Amino acid sequence: MSFLADLLNTVFERRYRGASEPDHQGRSIIELCSDLLSSSGEVSGMVLARHILDSYRAMNIDEKRAFFGYLTDFLGIVPDKVNSALADYTADPSKANYQRFMAVAEPRRQELARRLNQVPGATKQLVEMRKDLLQLTREHPELAVVDLDLRHLFASWFNRGFLVLRPINWESPADILDKIIVYEAVHAIHSWDDLRGRLQPADRRCFGFFHPAMPDEPLIFVEVALTQGIPGSVQGLLADERDNIAAEDADTAVFYSISNCQAGLAGISFGNSLIKQVVADLSRELPNLKTFVTLSPIPGLNRWLTETDKQSDPSDEEQIRKTAAHYLLNAKRANGAPYDPVARFHLGNGALVHAVHARADLSDNGLAQSSGAMVNYLYDLPLISQNHEQFATAQAVVASPEVTALSTAAEQQDT
Amino acid sequence: MSFLADLLNTVFERRYRGASEPDHQGRSIIELCSDLLSSSGEVSGMVLARHILDSYRAMNIDEKRAFFGYLTDFLGIVPDKVNSALADYTADPSKANYQRFMAVAEPRRQELARRLNQVPGATKQLVEMRKDLLQLTREHPELAVVDLDLRHLFASWFNRGFLVLRPINWESPADILDKIIVYEAVHAIHSWDDLRGRLQPADRRCFGFFHPAMPDEPLIFVEVALTQGIPGSVQGLLADERDNIAAEDADTAVFYSISNCQAGLAGISFGNSLIKQVVADLSRELPNLKTFVTLSPIPGLNRWLTETDKQSDPSDEEQIRKTAAHYLLNAKRANGAPYDPVARFHLGNGALVHAVHARADLSDNGLAQSSGAMVNYLYDLPLISQNHEQFATAQAVVASPEVTALSTAAEQQDT
Amino acid sequence: MSFLADLLNTVFERRYRGASEPDHQGRSIIELCSDLLSSSGEVSGMVLARHILDSYRAMNIDEKRAFFGYLTDFLGIVPDKVNSALADYTADPSKANYQRFMAVAEPRRQELARRLNQVPGATKQLVEMRKDLLQLTREHPELAVVDLDLRHLFASWFNRGFLVLRPINWESPADILDKIIVYEAVHAIHSWDDLRGRLQPADRRCFGFFHPAMPDEPLIFVEVALTQGIPGSVQGLLADERDNIAAEDADTAVFYSISNCQAGLAGISFGNSLIKQVVADLSRELPNLKTFVTLSPIPGLNRWLTETDKQSDPSDEEQIRKTAAHYLLNAKRANGAPYDPVARFHLGNGALVHAVHARADLSDNGLAQSSGAMVNYLYDLPLISQNHEQFATAQAVVASPEVTALSTAAEQQDT
Amino acid sequence: MSFLADLLNTVFERRYRGASEPDHQGRSIIELCSDLLSSSGEVSGMVLARHILDSYRAMNIDEKRAFFGYLTDFLGIVPDKVNSALADYTADPSKANYQRFMAVAEPRRQELARRLNQVPGATKQLVEMRKDLLQLTREHPELAVVDLDLRHLFASWFNRGFLVLRPINWESPADILDKIIVYEAVHAIHSWDDLRGRLQPADRRCFGFFHPAMPDEPLIFVEVALTQGIPGSVQGLLADERDNIAAEDADTAVFYSISNCQAGLAGISFGNSLIKQVVADLSRELPNLKTFVTLSPIPGLNRWLTETDKQSDPSDEEQIRKTAAHYLLNAKRANGAPYDPVARFHLGNGALVHAVHARADLSDNGLAQSSGAMVNYLYDLPLISQNHEQFATAQAVVASPEVTALSTAAEQQDT
Repeated sequence: MSFLADLLNTVFERRYRGASEPDHQGRSIIELCSDLLSSSGEVSGMVLARHILDSYRAMNIDEKRAFFGYLTDFLGIVPDKVNSALADYTADPSKANYQRFMAVAEPRRQELARRLNQVPGATKQLVEMRKDLLQLTREHPELAVVDLDLRHLFASWFNRGFLVLRPINWESPADILDKIIVYEAVHAIHSWDDLRGRLQPADRRCFGFFHPAMPDEPLIFVEVALTQGIPGSVQGLLADERDNIAAEDADTAVFYSISNCQAGLAGISFGNSLIKQVVADLSRELPNLKTFVTLSPIPGLNRWLTETDKQSDPSDEEQIRKTAAHYLLNAKRANGAPYDPVARFHLGNGALVHAVHARADLSDNGLAQSSGAMVNYLYDLPLISQNHEQFATAQAVVASPEVTALSTAAEQQDT
Repeated sequence: MSFLADLLNTVFERRYRGASEPDHQGRSIIELCSDLLSSSGEVSGMVLARHILDSYRAMNIDEKRAFFGYLTDFLGIVPDKVNSALADYTADPSKANYQRFMAVAEPRRQELARRLNQVPGATKQLVEMRKDLLQLTREHPELAVVDLDLRHLFASWFNRGFLVLRPINWESPADILDKIIVYEAVHAIHSWDDLRGRLQPADRRCFGFFHPAMPDEPLIFVEVALTQGIPGSVQGLLADERDNIAAEDADTAVFYSISNCQAGLAGISFGNSLIKQVVADLSRELPNLKTFVTLSPIPGLNRWLTETDKQSDPSDEEQIRKTAAHYLLNAKRANGAPYDPVARFHLGNGALVHAVHARADLSDNGLAQSSGAMVNYLYDLPLISQNHEQFATAQAVVASPEVTALSTAAEQQDT
Repeated sequence: MSFLADLLNTVFERRYRGASEPDHQGRSIIELCSDLLSSSGEVSGMVLARHILDSYRAMNIDEKRAFFGYLTDFLGIVPDKVNSALADYTADPSKANYQRFMAVAEPRRQELARRLNQVPGATKQLVEMRKDLLQLTREHPELAVVDLDLRHLFASWFNRGFLVLRPINWESPADILDKIIVYEAVHAIHSWDDLRGRLQPADRRCFGFFHPAMPDEPLIFVEVALTQGIPGSVQGLLADERDNIAAEDADTAVFYSISNCQAGLAGISFGNSLIKQVVADLSRELPNLKTFVTLSPIPGLNRWLTETDKQSDPSDEEQIRKTAAHYLLNAKRANGAPYDPVARFHLGNGALVHAVHARADLSDNGLAQSSGAMVNYLYDLPLISQNHEQFATAQAVVASPEVTALSTAAEQQDT
Repeated sequence: MSFLADLLNTVFERRYRGASEPDHQGRSIIELCSDLLSSSGEVSGMVLARHILDSYRAMNIDEKRAFFGYLTDFLGIVPDKVNSALADYTADPSKANYQRFMAVAEPRRQELARRLNQVPGATKQLVEMRKDLLQLTREHPELAVVDLDLRHLFASWFNRGFLVLRPINWESPADILDKIIVYEAVHAIHSWDDLRGRLQPADRRCFGFFHPAMPDEPLIFVEVALTQGIPGSVQGLLADERDNIAAEDADTAVFYSISNCQAGLAGISFGNSLIKQVVADLSRELPNLKTFVTLSPIPGLNRWLTETDKQSDPSDEEQIRKTAAHYLLNAKRANGAPYDPVARFHLGNGALVHAVHARADLSDNGLAQSSGAMVNYLYDLPLISQNHEQFATAQAVVASPEVTALSTAAEQQDT
């Protein structure tokens, strides 16, 4: 071996240590990936894929970093090849030239992911893999290109047409309910009894999206309360001793918690489809429902107040409502979108800001993020497309007269 | 409007007539596709997607051609943009530059297909769409680039990890069995009684791959006979009056018919995985099974004899066996692969040529294509990887001594 | 052994030959039944029960007769014991005395049937057993007491609360559809294509009752056509080339065929519950349905004309309608119930005679039994209870004015 | 109305107060029952049955007592009628006479229960009804005859052939698991985490019998631990921090808890069938299992010691083992059966007393009932029938040499 090769080898091994070390069968994960990509695939492919997934699972975080480094450096696109194929295609846009272009314009790590995905259960592991990757990219931003590829693939695999909406209730399998407890991100579920209180009563519903390849893993779920009138606090909704009503007697469906479950599917949006589907299904089942509304946190309020050096007296309830209204209608990110992430989500879906409430979430988290304030976003079916359009084209925030008045009052105080 | 614009418009309308005409809602499918691609998507996307799919379904073949022409000409890659993005990425391989490259290196028609696929049931329609397209490309080869994109997407969507193997038996839904009758491509099923004879007896099995988004459409299926010893004719296997045996008494599983069901999934290979999975499942269920073998047609035999000006006396059974053996071992395509398509499939899977039989398929089709000869390909579990490797690397055809001897005898006659 | 015992033995063996002969394990079915009844049961009971059921299945008709003879003669009630237990209970109606009475007032063959029923799949076999028995009782009326016991048990086991209503459609398992073809008793199904025509179109429905212990055996099923208006002939309903309508566009549900499937469940009525359940389910699914009506054969018409020496010109359609109306309203059995069995069923359910049609069933069977005439029985929901009550108490036949007028016209002709 | 009738009425109303009072629709439950029994039934029967069940559910305990009093006094057998029918049958054992006898020898309350059972969900309510009744019979023993009838019916309805064995695991519906927590009668389940520890690990199993008419209600369930060797304490089995093993590595299946769930099914034995079925299913799934054994409480030990004025030093472990062994082998009820109810159950099933352990159940309950002692009953497959036979005929208790020796040692101490 030449000196140069030797040197390169040494560098390689340092950089990809962990990914280049042979396992008990004498093959490193890098070699296995190379085998999998070069195999005409199907006969030995599944064995190789399983081997790689098993190896990955056994890796520590440094080894994983090395593995993703390999994907970044060696299984990306090769600009020269792309250039050359593109030139050929430009000169003669034939099928063969297009095929050659396609082959080189897509990085090989995408094909690797597809080949890994042959193994039963692989989809879930690939989603876990991206979860690791997203964590690693914070300190190793050069790995982000791999994430773009995985995200691209997952957006295709987790396309709405492949998802299944399933009710989640007290008859659901315990292993799925277990995950609901863990994944609930808005109003923590403290016990199985707490969970039962959100699933079993006649005036409660929960729905989630599932993917057939990960049937026991919810992707996203929404908790719904069926009420008479629009509620102004989550304490009332989740009170232990509250009186249930019959589902048929409700006129309002309140989406009071929406949680994404899979960190490895970050950036692949399901929430919009979920809400629309649930609205459609509930309307059909319960024709008395007239109002579809959220009871949502305002997670960015206090952070924004701090950042903008504004004051707000947490004991003045009316003041908090004004401040919150003002924030929701006027606080923006640099790109003009609403500052508040939950506002971005619902306004982007075509909802409007319907009402704000003080002392609506008195949990530690609720007090810390918004001094207890919450907001109802209203899904007014006939207006959704129009709201969405205004928001998408002009970033216009639609609000009820009441909220607009509150916001105006806040602005007049400021001046 | 300028004269030029007017002219272009006229040309456009001629070329894309059918795709550019407004429907009863005043929008052409081209406009709808454009809307769907430009929409931030989710709110109105599903309505648009459904509209497009409905419009497509109502089109005649000329309109479909125009639609695919639009996809070819307007929703492909734009070389200039790719060039520019690639240059940026080469200069600075940042995440942002990579993302921009990805966005332009993939033609927009791929994104269109993904957005169409939001609608429940869309997957099946997209598969149907590709079936139409494949038919049209014969006369309109310029459309083939669209097919490459659909095939690329489908290979990802119909990845082995997403497929479900299901037994198909006399308890299966009638609508699926109906399709088995239609899709059987090797030994036609003449009636429901004929079908019952292949599904209900204890010594018969059938398995198919299904995709969760098309649950009532088999993708591929294989029919299996459980026998004592390796059978030498399909008449014996399918005889009405044959004696059944108990499944536990069988030592051999015979794959006597494999049929791809979806013309729109042409080129996406399932057969290999199917056979391997069925071998694994049957081995576990019936430990007495020792031999896994096909009873396969030799569809190219007589065509090859004609093409090579060879003669064969159809009444000389021994001669037919020699000729068939010689053909299977030596007849090649220009690229060195076996001439016979079924041979290519099974040898590529790692099977070997085990035996040839005369008077094994006396149907009109069997007599026409191979003078009634058939072949057993043997899936010898310990040898599969090795056979496959030899075939993949050196296109070496592995055969039993008996078949090799027959082939040699044929060659000696020739000289 | 004494001469008498010997003689008795001989007689016994002659009478119960077949039931008293040892099988290959050296036990006769009589001994096995005795063992099963005397066993404290559970440990060896299931083995014994299976053994008995297997032995029964292998019997020829003479052996079965002997077996039922044994059940008749040896496993019935013993009047002396009943008398004695009843006297004790009358003297002291204690729990213990009641229990003793219960034990002897029920024949041991009922307990035998319950113990046989421990075995998975036994229920179906016991139903088959009663089918055999019903056939044998025609020539051996002394066996009818055994039938009364089985019927009593089956009425309890096949209680409405244990039955499951299931739609039968083109997605149903083929083995169940196979049975629908066989069991259809009103308008024969000639082929799978014929069956498909009754199940697959959007304006056709079929429903059956199933029992969880016999999940692949329909007990009774009804075929329904969704129509606009009330149809007057079965040819129209079953025509191959008819135009389908959307289910939502129908205003009428026509029950055009009801078939009992299990001869062994004769006398256990399901039809009434079935129709009521189907009316309820269809009303909920399709709120546009306003009329629930049958299109029924008149199986007893021509037989009754012959028996009563009446004439009817089969070519005079108006005359046939009058005759049929008269028959339906006036022809009675000795006990005052309608002569026509189908009339008895529907009138007993609370339906009324709505219309009669000539040339409504031109099949050989239809012409033979009623010169092609058919009748609509109307299930007029608000009137069902009242109709039923009038029929149950006064055997009053309710009919529409039109049918009443036809009947009156027929009577005026007669005089 | 005559004075007498009036008097009777008064008495009647006093005795059946609650059952004879009209409800809001003006009918008492007694009148409704009478209607249901006299109706030819099917048309209005289901409405009546539902009405009765609803009325019953709304009753307080006094009203329920009145209702059962009515069933006792008015819907029992009528001796005169039975006598007369029996006399006719004895004189002429015809079918008609037998049918008449059957009709009067069965009390009408049995038919009432069958007619109530038409309503979906009624079976569960009837089981609840018997639960109430069993409670009432303690103070009102005259009602016990009604219980005998319900028990007779339930034994037929809950026949082994109608039951379904289902695994209960962490994928089971939460509402069923909820009931497992409630119904566990041997070793209390303290939380969902405790439950998870008994269901989720690879070396744990749970199985229950279900009836199709009560699909979300377990009838009985057994918890199983898969172990290496026979465990001697329940603390070890249920320890939080124990090491799990792979199911394939286990050689022993330990039935450590069997709980009947339905008080209303008391006296209808499922346990024996359950254990046998589970042994069969586990043997098939896990061929390495060689030993099937219980780890059972000895609930009667300390009570018996007290009753017989025996002493036992709870701190002397060896002494406890001797005492327990002696008790299990020698303590008898008046009728000769074992004094210990759990011993009766397992010995009756054909198990043998395999080992006794001190300090095996240190829960409060375990210490109170048996000073912490437990016992293994061994299900030795080849010996089960023989053990059962010896026990059933001679009440012989089979034990291992070790336990016999312990018992002998105890007896020698006594003398």
